[in-house]
Amino acid sequence: MENFTYWAPTKYVFGRDTESRVGELAASFGMKKILVVYGGGSAVRSGLLGRVEKYLADAGIEAVSLGGVKPNPEDDLVYKGIDLARAEGVDSMIAVGGGSVIDTAKAIAVGVPYQGDFWDFYSGKAKATTALPVGVVLTIPAAGSEGSGNSVITKREGRIKTGLRTESALRPRFAVLDPVLTFTLPPYQTASGISDMMAHIMERYFSNTPDVEVTDRLCEGLLRAIIEESPKVMANPEDYQARANIMWAGTLAHNGICGCGRQEEWTSHAMEHEISAVYGVTHGAGLAVVFPAWLRFMADRNPGKVAQFARRVFSVEAHDDRAAALEGILALQTFFSDTLNLPVSFAALGIENPDIDLLSDRLHALKGNPTGSYYPLTPADSRMIYQMML
Amino acid sequence: MENFTYWAPTKYVFGRDTESRVGELAASFGMKKILVVYGGGSAVRSGLLGRVEKYLADAGIEAVSLGGVKPNPEDDLVYKGIDLARAEGVDSMIAVGGGSVIDTAKAIAVGVPYQGDFWDFYSGKAKATTALPVGVVLTIPAAGSEGSGNSVITKREGRIKTGLRTESALRPRFAVLDPVLTFTLPPYQTASGISDMMAHIMERYFSNTPDVEVTDRLCEGLLRAIIEESPKVMANPEDYQARANIMWAGTLAHNGICGCGRQEEWTSHAMEHEISAVYGVTHGAGLAVVFPAWLRFMADRNPGKVAQFARRVFSVEAHDDRAAALEGILALQTFFSDTLNLPVSFAALGIENPDIDLLSDRLHALKGNPTGSYYPLTPADSRMIYQMML
Repeated sequence: MENFTYWAPTKYVFGRDTESRVGELAASFGMKKILVVYGGGSAVRSGLLGRVEKYLADAGIEAVSLGGVKPNPEDDLVYKGIDLARAEGVDSMIAVGGGSVIDTAKAIAVGVPYQGDFWDFYSGKAKATTALPVGVVLTIPAAGSEGSGNSVITKREGRIKTGLRTESALRPRFAVLDPVLTFTLPPYQTASGISDMMAHIMERYFSNTPDVEVTDRLCEGLLRAIIEESPKVMANPEDYQARANIMWAGTLAHNGICGCGRQEEWTSHAMEHEISAVYGVTHGAGLAVVFPAWLRFMADRNPGKVAQFARRVFSVEAHDDRAAALEGILALQTFFSDTLNLPVSFAALGIENPDIDLLSDRLHALKGNPTGSYYPLTPADSRMIYQMML
Repeated sequence: MENFTYWAPTKYVFGRDTESRVGELAASFGMKKILVVYGGGSAVRSGLLGRVEKYLADAGIEAVSLGGVKPNPEDDLVYKGIDLARAEGVDSMIAVGGGSVIDTAKAIAVGVPYQGDFWDFYSGKAKATTALPVGVVLTIPAAGSEGSGNSVITKREGRIKTGLRTESALRPRFAVLDPVLTFTLPPYQTASGISDMMAHIMERYFSNTPDVEVTDRLCEGLLRAIIEESPKVMANPEDYQARANIMWAGTLAHNGICGCGRQEEWTSHAMEHEISAVYGVTHGAGLAVVFPAWLRFMADRNPGKVAQFARRVFSVEAHDDRAAALEGILALQTFFSDTLNLPVSFAALGIENPDIDLLSDRLHALKGNPTGSYYPLTPADSRMIYQMML
């Protein structure tokens, strides 16, 4: 186990009818004038946005709204939000939505008090240590941004999708997690969210750091719970209990508890980010394509942890590590395709002739050569893995 | 899953040589004059107390010290600490030690700003919402108080051992977790700590709340990790990696993550508190006696969760729930006796003729009749369970 600091001060308020507590929570964290960020029409159509505005007003809190966040959120709306926040003199942010909305709110939060270009934080030119406080009303369990100190934004120019990771500056002050708000998610979005949260766990799980039994067992336990609850939400989108388990798992998958004391991986995420940036696919669906391919590549090169994953998460009994690994990967891929109805190839994603050289070039331009830690990838390696997704 | 609020803002700084960061951490949380609380001679003899005082001085922080905390810490030292803290005008507390030291520091922290008797918070007469900030340098992984909002103190008059539970007021601001500091723990204390942390998980695990798959899996995973790492620390007290896993497991066992969304139990703890209060035994050792007996009683009355525990934690394969439960309980008891070398009966605890009526009367006087939630106990039930420990 390596040394680590774990600091996750977000206050989670979880369960039925918790959305009505957003005003009281915002007031308890000293929020007085809030920029409420949301996405497309669903938060408006469902009435959620209006209710949140009413809860805030009832608590004596002023609110300004900014809608229009899209999946794979872009920098242009962030700039617009920073200008609006400054013009209105807001002191805090509330995100009503999923990861894209939260990440946009975080980018605005870190940009408002900064004199330079907010992108400096994402490009690594500046270090984010302060930000406006952010609260969250979560509607999509997937990205885990409600409990993380991270934010992922795409720079429209050059389609550069990159993440900012802070220890605590961008951790939301509070997150309202009401499973009922997820009842109306379409199956594809539900499934993509599940794939995303599983990937967040697996990116931390596939590590060469030895002696991490506690976090290994936490990761495996969360994955098993997600696998057990998923068929229920896919069969019945209004199964409160299954939605609740999936929602809580999505937060724990990415609030850092699964990564304590270990080197993390994140290459599958980086490979997917390039697919999303170039072809505009849904992040979680892209991950269902990338992860099995990345794992199969690893089964031939560093099978140990993949075999442990297969045995402990999918109860594979094969004695040989490579055989066990391959059986576990097949089980994972079958779960993605048959239980979640997600694409597991470029073709199924709707990308008939992917430009593999471009994807690999972009990956290494952003992440270096080699990239990754569990088994660092050269450009030839990453091209091979992209090939395995055809 | 039930509604819940989970708020665990403690900053954990974990690993080798982290003790030297206590000055910087205290300063970062605005601490200027600190009451350092410690126990007996070991913190002095090992030099840890002196080093902590030096780290604080190097950070420009004033410190006053209060030693003498004993296991099952008592109210008299708390009163003394409150007087000292007020006289010296300290603004915060640092506990250097295990659960007894931390709980004493917390009791002083909540008592200093309160006009009345600090015991009001423990007796339920007053609600604790504010306290001086507390930091921790942990030396015994066991009680989990470094990450919890709780404190357990024994009132000397009448030997009433009772706990105070707060949402966040008594959560330490930071906890320094250096596994090297646990190398010198005697085997009996190491083992008692492991038993205590397992009990903290099991008190949350044995719940009738349905549909808590995520927290069930977290609990089971932590228990498995503890069971796997324990033989290593018992065989080699200086096995850093095993010590590290045990230390982190002890914190997660009790910082609330294992209890989210479920009714908790805590009857075994309450039954053990009476044994400790009357006979002065080590809490964790007492739990190794109580828990198997409580579980055997449950195997005949509410075996479902006990059977799940047996199957998922000890890989028991029996099909019948009661049979599986009994096999799992035997495995747990054997782990306590053979791996941890702990007593598993009153006799082995050194109590030849326990006054079972007294223990049962005290339990119900404090906790009510019936007490417990997984299967509420009448006085006849609790007497039977105490009998099963003979």
